[in-house]
Order: sequence, then structure tokens, then C-alpha cells
Amino acid sequence: MPATTAHAYAAPAPKAPLEPTTVPRRAVGEHDVLIDIKYAGICHSDIHQVDEDWGQSIFPMVPGHEIAGVVSEVGPGVTRYAVGDRVGVGCFVDSCRECDNCRAGLQQYCTGGGMIATYNGTGVDGEPTYGGYSTHIVVDEQYTLRIPDGLALDQAAPLLCAGITVYSPLAHWKAGPGKRVAIVGMGGLGHMGVKLAHAMGAEVTVLSQSLRKRDDGLRLGADHFHATADPATFEELAGSLDLIVNTVSAHLDLDAYLGLLRNDGTMVNVGAPEQPQSVGTFSLLAGRKSLAGSAIGGIPETQEMLDLCAREGIGAEIEVIAADQINEAYRRVLAGDVRYRFVIDASTLAA
Amino acid sequence: MPATTAHAYAAPAPKAPLEPTTVPRRAVGEHDVLIDIKYAGICHSDIHQVDEDWGQSIFPMVPGHEIAGVVSEVGPGVTRYAVGDRVGVGCFVDSCRECDNCRAGLQQYCTGGGMIATYNGTGVDGEPTYGGYSTHIVVDEQYTLRIPDGLALDQAAPLLCAGITVYSPLAHWKAGPGKRVAIVGMGGLGHMGVKLAHAMGAEVTVLSQSLRKRDDGLRLGADHFHATADPATFEELAGSLDLIVNTVSAHLDLDAYLGLLRNDGTMVNVGAPEQPQSVGTFSLLAGRKSLAGSAIGGIPETQEMLDLCAREGIGAEIEVIAADQINEAYRRVLAGDVRYRFVIDASTLAA
Repeated sequence: MPATTAHAYAAPAPKAPLEPTTVPRRAVGEHDVLIDIKYAGICHSDIHQVDEDWGQSIFPMVPGHEIAGVVSEVGPGVTRYAVGDRVGVGCFVDSCRECDNCRAGLQQYCTGGGMIATYNGTGVDGEPTYGGYSTHIVVDEQYTLRIPDGLALDQAAPLLCAGITVYSPLAHWKAGPGKRVAIVGMGGLGHMGVKLAHAMGAEVTVLSQSLRKRDDGLRLGADHFHATADPATFEELAGSLDLIVNTVSAHLDLDAYLGLLRNDGTMVNVGAPEQPQSVGTFSLLAGRKSLAGSAIGGIPETQEMLDLCAREGIGAEIEVIAADQINEAYRRVLAGDVRYRFVIDASTLAA
Repeated sequence: MPATTAHAYAAPAPKAPLEPTTVPRRAVGEHDVLIDIKYAGICHSDIHQVDEDWGQSIFPMVPGHEIAGVVSEVGPGVTRYAVGDRVGVGCFVDSCRECDNCRAGLQQYCTGGGMIATYNGTGVDGEPTYGGYSTHIVVDEQYTLRIPDGLALDQAAPLLCAGITVYSPLAHWKAGPGKRVAIVGMGGLGHMGVKLAHAMGAEVTVLSQSLRKRDDGLRLGADHFHATADPATFEELAGSLDLIVNTVSAHLDLDAYLGLLRNDGTMVNVGAPEQPQSVGTFSLLAGRKSLAGSAIGGIPETQEMLDLCAREGIGAEIEVIAADQINEAYRRVLAGDVRYRFVIDASTLAA
């Protein structure tokens, strides 16, 4: 099974527009699956990495870590998947597999060298990794997820990053019946947070800058929708929430948000502001509150989330685009002009 | 049972030296006990409040919320205590008793108007509360703790604030066998943190500015002692701790300390820096870490801590002083020159 060449869209240099290209894909190894990619979501972090906002990036860069497709070839040692299976790949394609976190299924927190990112990383073979804006990818079966039949592949793709990034903290901090959960920001992550928290049985509040997306929020499962630009929101909800999942990367007045928590409540950041945040110690002391962070999710909980979504009929709200619309889509993501995730139709990448 | 007058030491005005005075104590009510105070600890927060560091204070102020004494009179409805019982009073003497937190025994987080502070507060009768630098105090039995026979009253007094302030987060975040716990700072709170975490079965590391108190730390139960002024400390301990209890009010590089935590670790502040603290979001994201706060402790857990101390033979390390040494003791606390708690012999207050 020789190495193959995949069509792809890549940024040739920092901040450069993406353009059509081809990338090599390794030969299908003992435990690998070759995936015909059908759809790839556009994550805001793709843009950050193309723009080198988070430090040095590797170019040419093929972004994309929200991948949905179909298995077209399997290595001889593969036991979980067969040709024709519907599968997904998220933010990482390998990790050390030996540290405590890897053994616990928390590969995203691998301490044995760190997870290997689906793109803009370096594979076990020492070669750069290329992501999902591509027609094919070869991934070890242990880092491949099953997309249940009930889920459309295009709506499933964003679950592999946006979905799991909010699901993981909701599950870890036990969102469920009797819990009051707020989702800050209703973008790609936030809209999935609303759907998932609602499906998990929590009472869901959206905290959005304005009421512009109110109808959408209520339709997706929110019980309450408040504008954070309105100071009354912070009075009305003071001390009422068990869990706040903050999907916003922009600067927030953390003390104001911590004031919305009940005793023992937690505010979890899943967005990644570049600047340090400021927090008053009394905001945490008063009510034994926690400020936490959470990064994507591990393989077992990603599968759990996909299974939940299939059971509950939940997918991402998407706008499917062709490859030649990627650069325009990036501009629209930066302008907040997407409801709620762009998904690239991979059949257009080879055109 | 008429109101009584107690001898006391009070600060007549902000930042003024304390001087002898008398204060009224209310008549012993239905559920009250009158306590002959034997010892009162000097807490750093006494100085903050005398100095009005935390906003407006009430003067004259009789500080002291680490009180140990003996019951000398009980109200007709009192069921828990009898004359001659050894008792303590901590940071609060009442609360709403009806909110969820009060019902859960977390009176320190009372949301029904807040706990009534032992001093520098306003009692249910609308009168100022006066603290433990005094010969007598009248307190509702429900806000009175039993000091078990095994505990010397002078060594027990500081447990009522310094002890419970570190015990509460240690218990809440489950310090115990198999857990690696660090105590930041080895002062009044920190030295109790070492003793208590050790008694609870945790592996205890002290993080102190220098190695000056190393021998004491190891004697009190620490397994490891590191200087935070040495950058090697932060390399050596990276990713190794489950829980950090920070007793230091001075500014710390939180990101450096968060780097010492393992996955899912928590850093709890029990000190109260006046300035907001800065934290990088990636410090929390990487390893799903939490930055939390904890304030003193509730009545049930304070009793639990006192019982543990009696069982394990743990008291505070103290220097007993006479009332006329209080102002000098304040200067020494500010200079960090105390190992590890000043305790006022209340018999000297009337002199």
C-alpha cells in the first residue's frame, strides 16, 4: 500500500490566502485507515494558525481538524473499522499512548511529548502533518472516531472540535438535570454548547453580547438568553449559575462573570485569549468558586459525544461551501458572519 | 442575666495602637453561652482591619476571631454546652441560618445577608461586634465550637481561623493518601496547612520563599521543602502536584505555580491579595486546571477539624504574649517575625 497524494488547500506562508495544492499521505500502515474526506469544518483556530497568532507555524499549512469521511482502505492490523465505515478525525492524530493521561483517554493532555496535532504538527515519522482541507488522510485507527449512522457527515464534521471542546467541560463539571449552565458566546463552539447542555438535561442560559441571536439560541435549546452588554444581566443572574462555559476569546470582565456563579460554581474557559486575564481573589474566595480551563477532549469522550449527538439528533448548524470560498469564509469568520460553522465540501478540493 | 462589661484591648481609630478599654457584652439569651476567654490568637487580618486595608472599619475595634475559653454561663435553651465546657469561637458569630449555604453548614458563604463577623461587624441587635481580645464574649451556642480535652486552649485558639482556613480547602479538594499537596507560605496559616495535610495522609511539599524555615517544615510534617526564589524548584516540581493551597497574600506568578499542577489539579487561594491577579488562559487549559478560592470554613467542618487535631495531637505553634505586647506583636507579624502565631493570654487584659 504505497503512499498517496491528496488534493488540498494550503496556506503557502503566514497570513497568505489558501490555494489549491497537493500533499503526500503516508502509506497505510498496520493500524492505519485511509479516509476519503467528505467534509471539513473551518475552525477559528485554523485562522489563528495560518496567521501565526500562536507562535511559529509550519508552511505550507493545510488546516482542518474537523474531519468527516468514509474509510476507503484499512491496514492489516485494523480491528475497529472496515472499508465503507463513516468516521471522523479531530484535533490530534496521535500521542505518546503511555503517560497517565493517554492511558486515561485524555490524549489531549498527553504529557509524553504532547498530542500530535492533526495539522501544523510533526508526525511520528518526523514529517509535517496536514489537515482536513484535503481529499484524503491516513490516521491510526485509535485516533479515528466512528460517526454513527444517524448523523449527517457535513453536520458531524464540526463536532470533532467545536462539539467536543464544549462537551468535555460540560461532562467533566457534570452539566445535567438540576444544573444551571451558561454558555458565553454563541458562535461555532457556543451554539454547540447550547445544544449539548440542553441535551444533557441542564437549564441553559446563553450570555451573548446582544440579543441578536436570541431566536436561534432558544430554538437550539436555551431556556434563557441574556445580553452581556446590558448591566442588568449581571444583577438579575447574580449567584444563580452552577457552571459557565466561556467560548469567547476576547477579553471579559471575569469578576463580573464569577459573580453570576452560585457557591462552588465553576467558570471554564475553552477559548484562548492571547492576553493574560485579570481576576480578583475575592471573586473566587466568596463562594469557593473556581476558574478553570479545558482543552478539546480525549478519544473516548469524543466518541461518547458523537453517540449522544446521534441519539439526540444533534448536529452543527452549518453553511457548506466549496473550496474556492475558503478565503472568503475566513473573512466572514473574523467578522462573526457565520451561523454557525462553515464546512468545506471536500469534493470541490480537487476541482 | 444582665448584660456584662468585659475588659478588652481596642484600636480607637484606624491604624492607631491598641489600648485597654471595656466593652459591653449582651445579656445571655435563650440560646447563648457566656465564655470566659482564656486565649485569643492574633491573625494578620486583625491588622488589615485595624488599618482599614479592606474598606471602612468600625471603631473602636476589638479584634480577635481565634478565641478559646470556658463556658461560665448558659441560656435556658442551651443544649450543647454546660458551664465548665471548653469552647472556641471563630470568624463569625451568626448568619441567616436559612439560605442554602447556612443549611448546608457553610455559614461562611451565607447568602442571606452574609455571616456576622466576630468583630468589626454588626450583630443581630444592630450593635457593633467586638472580638476576642477581651475577657468575655456572649455567643449563640450554634456558633460555638467544642474544644476537645486533648487540645491545650492556647494552642487551640489559632485553629479557629488559621486552622480552619487551610483545613476547609484541604478537605474540600480531598487531600489525603496518594495526593501530593503543596502549601505555599509557612506562616500562621501555612504551618497549620503542613500539619493538617500531613495528618490527613497527603504527601506534603512546602513552597517557601527561602529554605530558612526548612527544619521547622520537616518537623511539622512536610515531606519536601523547596525555595520559590530558586527557579529550579519550578522545573523540578513541574506537573507533579494535585493541590496547591496558597496562604500568601503577596503577588505570585500564578502561571508558574499552575505549571506545578498535574492534570485536573487545583490551586486554591486562601490569602487575599488586594490587587487582582493575572493568569494566562493556557495555564488553565493545558491540563484542565483550576484556580479557586476558599474562605475560612463552616461550623460543622470547624468542629471536624478540632476533633481531628485532638485525635492527632495537633495544635498551633505559638508564642503566648501579654496584652501590653499586642502592638509590638503587630509589628512583628508585619515583619514576618513569628513562629507561628501570637496568642494573647486573656488574663492579662484586665491588668
